[in-house]
Amino acid sequence: MREVAVIGIGQTPVDEHWDKSIRELAAEAVILALQDAQREDVDALYVGNMLSGLISQQENLGTLVADWAGLRYTEAVKIEAACSSGAAAVRQAVIAVASGYIDSAVAVGVEKMTEAKGNEITAALATAADADYEAAHGVSFVALNALIMQRYMYEYGWQHADFAAFSINAHQNAITNSYARLRERITEQDYAKAKMIAYPINLLDASPTGDGAAAVVVVPKETLRKNGKPIIKIAASAAATDSIAIHDRNDPLWLKAAEISSKKAYAQAQVKPADISFFELHDAFSIMSALSLEACGFAERGQGPRLALEGKIALNGKLPITTMGGLKARGHPVGATGVYQIVEAVLQLRGDAGENQVADAKIGMTQNIGGSGSNIITHILVKE
Amino acid sequence: MREVAVIGIGQTPVDEHWDKSIRELAAEAVILALQDAQREDVDALYVGNMLSGLISQQENLGTLVADWAGLRYTEAVKIEAACSSGAAAVRQAVIAVASGYIDSAVAVGVEKMTEAKGNEITAALATAADADYEAAHGVSFVALNALIMQRYMYEYGWQHADFAAFSINAHQNAITNSYARLRERITEQDYAKAKMIAYPINLLDASPTGDGAAAVVVVPKETLRKNGKPIIKIAASAAATDSIAIHDRNDPLWLKAAEISSKKAYAQAQVKPADISFFELHDAFSIMSALSLEACGFAERGQGPRLALEGKIALNGKLPITTMGGLKARGHPVGATGVYQIVEAVLQLRGDAGENQVADAKIGMTQNIGGSGSNIITHILVKE
Repeated sequence: MREVAVIGIGQTPVDEHWDKSIRELAAEAVILALQDAQREDVDALYVGNMLSGLISQQENLGTLVADWAGLRYTEAVKIEAACSSGAAAVRQAVIAVASGYIDSAVAVGVEKMTEAKGNEITAALATAADADYEAAHGVSFVALNALIMQRYMYEYGWQHADFAAFSINAHQNAITNSYARLRERITEQDYAKAKMIAYPINLLDASPTGDGAAAVVVVPKETLRKNGKPIIKIAASAAATDSIAIHDRNDPLWLKAAEISSKKAYAQAQVKPADISFFELHDAFSIMSALSLEACGFAERGQGPRLALEGKIALNGKLPITTMGGLKARGHPVGATGVYQIVEAVLQLRGDAGENQVADAKIGMTQNIGGSGSNIITHILVKE
Repeated sequence: MREVAVIGIGQTPVDEHWDKSIRELAAEAVILALQDAQREDVDALYVGNMLSGLISQQENLGTLVADWAGLRYTEAVKIEAACSSGAAAVRQAVIAVASGYIDSAVAVGVEKMTEAKGNEITAALATAADADYEAAHGVSFVALNALIMQRYMYEYGWQHADFAAFSINAHQNAITNSYARLRERITEQDYAKAKMIAYPINLLDASPTGDGAAAVVVVPKETLRKNGKPIIKIAASAAATDSIAIHDRNDPLWLKAAEISSKKAYAQAQVKPADISFFELHDAFSIMSALSLEACGFAERGQGPRLALEGKIALNGKLPITTMGGLKARGHPVGATGVYQIVEAVLQLRGDAGENQVADAKIGMTQNIGGSGSNIITHILVKE
């Protein structure tokens, strides 16, 4: 198995891109990543996307993006794993390069959400849940997460205000990320009085959707030479599922798929949680930050919020998270998010994160969650 | 790169399965394949599917199928490449096992089409074309293929009746395949008087949709021991794209992606067209059979129909095609078709094809086409 490195990254701002179609967004990120890699082509393209069929009436998206990005004839597919489609596409690219079947690949995550009408997006996002046994009862995706958060607060005795620190940290970090959608500071008061969406999740617990695309170029590490610049190796790539429906889980407050995929990732990279310099986790809702930190071994069960309350998740903390704003403030164009996380990790490891730079960033971890914790993919990137 | 072998296959009949949801269809094929492989689990699941979001309001399909098939916690994603989603899923499984990241995988193709209402399927299938520059003009997927067929007849001087032999052969082979949807003989007269759909494509030029699922289990070949049974090696797996829109091609009568992927496959397997024992091609429309034969080196440009007219495509011919009925008569549950083709190839190579057995079948080729020739995946399987 060949070791794999990232040699190019590209991203568009997360925003309402009324002037750009899904093919244009994706191609922009692909071309930026190829330019960054100083390449004109690759052997394969993997497009992470969840909603193109439902929102843009466009499947065969791999082909479309290859065609539009100047990669006509290059093999291409779309990879779908709900909100973890982005990391799933990166994982396929890593595996393909590791296998020797191909020598280079681009993984691009793209989502075009803001052109949807009315509650189309709410219905479309509910396709990540169990259509027959969850969505059929009218429960939205936010409501499913709200049920988890409510139970978590009941079981472990937390107040709603205890989750504010996750959102405040994310917004703080987004201010200096020009690709972020919500570049504004928020306070505990803002958080407390934000509009309720589905109790106890309010507007400042939830990440905003958006249009966006991010891309990475990967090649065998053995083809790279030390030229003064750091080599960013993908030291681990691991994935796991859980039951798609929350009611089928023995413990709905434990992200089993995060535990499995992170343990596999630690083993592959031969590191332990304490070695991680920063963690780009999947804060689609503030409760998910807590659950992810616990399942990955950064906090005791039921104690995730403590890390945030104690300031350990800040850029200068023990375990910086959502260093460029996270889903909460950079934005969550669902199928693109997992690739944004990896692009941001590469920026940190290259030392190119500007005002958001984590000091001495050597080992970065990313975690992308699909569904309500049902499909979770963990990557560990290491600077060499 | 590890060599990869198929050790298990499973399929459901292609039919109107009113009593089975998409998860049940997929799980049935997965479980049959695992039983055939004498295994209870695998390391990864790849689900080939095009339409679950649009027709069943279900994305996150990889997770759903893993969960329902008894593979909870196993990593899983959906792979989408329009009508070549099935072969794309197999290709990802092959690459993943070849890489060493995982040691076993199931690829399942599944499609649930017959529960769609009115012309939902026509609209959903059009998402394989260019949404902005083809489908937006109201052209259906059949109409796109009709334009190709009409031009082909004009350029090379063929009559509509010259394509009958493709459909007659497919129907003949389906009679003895209990998984086929249309198990009835057709004649030249039936073909000539069939209802017109989009001139010159009539009902007997076109493959029927349907509900169905097929699955294969793949492992490293090195883990298998000779035990009297043949080992079925995946000797080649290759993919390529073309422009998604037909009007963007220099030559709309040449399947460039078939040429590229078949040439790569021949090189990987170290064989030439004359070595192929049988060819499961993608006869979604009779014109596609002709174009596929030409682009893969079995016929001169413009001469594809000649092979059929001369009887060379029959089970006892020089190059048997669609040996179990093909898309035309086995049926075309779009995202599942590519896996059906590989299941059928394995049956042939094992010598388990019953009345449809091709004598001395040693090297089988399959080709799955997504869009109007825009995403083409070729596999070569060899009996050792």
